[in-house]
Amino acid sequence: MTEVIDPRDVSWVAEFADVLQIGTRNMQNYALLKEVGKAGRPVLLKRGMYSTLEEWLNCAEYILSEGNPDVILCERGIRTFEKYTRNTLDLSAVPAIKELTHLPIIVDPTHSTGRISLIGPMSSAAVAAGADGLIIEVHNRPEEALCDADQALTPAMFEGIMAQIRPLKAFLESN
Amino acid sequence: MTEVIDPRDVSWVAEFADVLQIGTRNMQNYALLKEVGKAGRPVLLKRGMYSTLEEWLNCAEYILSEGNPDVILCERGIRTFEKYTRNTLDLSAVPAIKELTHLPIIVDPTHSTGRISLIGPMSSAAVAAGADGLIIEVHNRPEEALCDADQALTPAMFEGIMAQIRPLKAFLESN
Amino acid sequence: MTEVIDPRDVSWVAEFADVLQIGTRNMQNYALLKEVGKAGRPVLLKRGMYSTLEEWLNCAEYILSEGNPDVILCERGIRTFEKYTRNTLDLSAVPAIKELTHLPIIVDPTHSTGRISLIGPMSSAAVAAGADGLIIEVHNRPEEALCDADQALTPAMFEGIMAQIRPLKAFLESN
Amino acid sequence: MTEVIDPRDVSWVAEFADVLQIGTRNMQNYALLKEVGKAGRPVLLKRGMYSTLEEWLNCAEYILSEGNPDVILCERGIRTFEKYTRNTLDLSAVPAIKELTHLPIIVDPTHSTGRISLIGPMSSAAVAAGADGLIIEVHNRPEEALCDADQALTPAMFEGIMAQIRPLKAFLESN
Repeated sequence: MTEVIDPRDVSWVAEFADVLQIGTRNMQNYALLKEVGKAGRPVLLKRGMYSTLEEWLNCAEYILSEGNPDVILCERGIRTFEKYTRNTLDLSAVPAIKELTHLPIIVDPTHSTGRISLIGPMSSAAVAAGADGLIIEVHNRPEEALCDADQALTPAMFEGIMAQIRPLKAFLESN
Repeated sequence: MTEVIDPRDVSWVAEFADVLQIGTRNMQNYALLKEVGKAGRPVLLKRGMYSTLEEWLNCAEYILSEGNPDVILCERGIRTFEKYTRNTLDLSAVPAIKELTHLPIIVDPTHSTGRISLIGPMSSAAVAAGADGLIIEVHNRPEEALCDADQALTPAMFEGIMAQIRPLKAFLESN
Repeated sequence: MTEVIDPRDVSWVAEFADVLQIGTRNMQNYALLKEVGKAGRPVLLKRGMYSTLEEWLNCAEYILSEGNPDVILCERGIRTFEKYTRNTLDLSAVPAIKELTHLPIIVDPTHSTGRISLIGPMSSAAVAAGADGLIIEVHNRPEEALCDADQALTPAMFEGIMAQIRPLKAFLESN
Repeated sequence: MTEVIDPRDVSWVAEFADVLQIGTRNMQNYALLKEVGKAGRPVLLKRGMYSTLEEWLNCAEYILSEGNPDVILCERGIRTFEKYTRNTLDLSAVPAIKELTHLPIIVDPTHSTGRISLIGPMSSAAVAAGADGLIIEVHNRPEEALCDADQALTPAMFEGIMAQIRPLKAFLESN
């Protein structure tokens, strides 16, 4: 998966990337949305940090209306006054989106909380809320990461979280 | 449990109520906080709808410092720009509070979402995030409720939600 | 003017204070609002930092309905994501309140901006927006103030601002 | 002045438009910012509706660093919980920006308030706060406007506002 920010990059990136990602700052970049709508690749559309559910779905519509049905929504936290977390993860968006659209929705506990200690609990909560997937930042050597170094998990930490998520998901599906 | 809003009512209410509740609009009502600190009853302290975690814990401290150790925190949603839900339920507050204090924290999915359809999923998410309890509004005849009629569950709906929450809680505790 | 936070203090404070002030954290303290409504003194009702204009006017109504017609509204900034200023001064509230009610409205540029350098320009802006008055924090020796030391003006700084506000107000009234 | 949203449109639009406008939804569209930085035309950079002053100035830097020194900032309101106005006009941004940068800043009272009745008072307030200019929506026949019909002024209403702004500006400059 690769993030695109310039409509002129979409066609060549689509040759190599399995999924095109639209970041939170570009959710309302309409020229880019239309271009990824024509790219023949699934698109991960992150929620704008200041966007309502309605605006988010309107932006998904820009992609869908170009003939691309494979849009995945990603809740990644909204901007509020709270400063303990980097953003405020709006998990109610998960069941809300499910009653508003058929599109799948995944959750990003990394960028929303900005705290390693909260990634595990919020991953479990996202799955329990009905999320179709998670996107979690992992780095072999987080201290050398070019950005977001203080919130990337090591592979070992990630494995620890998955050891809790997998049985939880299995339990929820069997009930 | 009974909500108190006037410090002059605390002592007589404490004779009858098992738990005194401080509502979101009174979280920073310091005269009231001090009075319930002396009441010899557990206190449920709802988070102010525009309060940071730090401010919330400072208000808990007003109660604790009067000698009352039985403070229960309650996340009930914060005010944001999103309008699909009545407030934005900040579930990250659950694991965050657990790393900041030893006080128990429960979650109110009724007033935070304001939508009956979201109460079930967000109750599950709250439990998965580590909440110590839930507070859910139930009414025998919601359509006759004096307030919040459109978000109160019937006893049957409540039982349906609990039929999912109980095994989830048991599963989480056994893992 | 004296701030009251406990309804039990209202009657004796009213013997000494010319105006009773309700602070932003107590705007929705209904027991206090009713008590100052009976106190026979003008009341300065600060806007809650998380309150809509509608909620603010509803709280004023609690005072008015007890028979006290002398309510002065005070815009003191709302809580947003912006961190350069302590709060976000919502000056549109001034003409908005004037079309919603007959009550006078004054502006607090000290607590809203939290920055000495912004107090002068925002005082001018408030007057130009139609404010009926200003409330500005002044301290003989700001560095010794018990609180808000970094935003209190010296008397000399205050005089400098007033030297601009007085002619501006006179100009606006003559046009 | 013409709004651009696609980097591929910048060069031909720049042949005809005196000023290129970047709208609030594209403030962080970095591909677009770089392109207008090379266009040889002044750029009006609207503040993102959920952007801090720091983020806004960082985006201006993208344009400046491409060699285009003619960036005009435009405060157009931020998104908050208040619903009486369409957005919350953050007039403190005017003197704040003046202490952070040499770039000129203008104010948009139309889109920030979304109410015709507030445009006059907030225009006066903006000028008193030190704004370098105003951008006000006017339409010959507002009821036929393709968008924002309910907040566009008629030419006569605009003239009425300017009859107040011009002498106020002259007064402020002479003091």
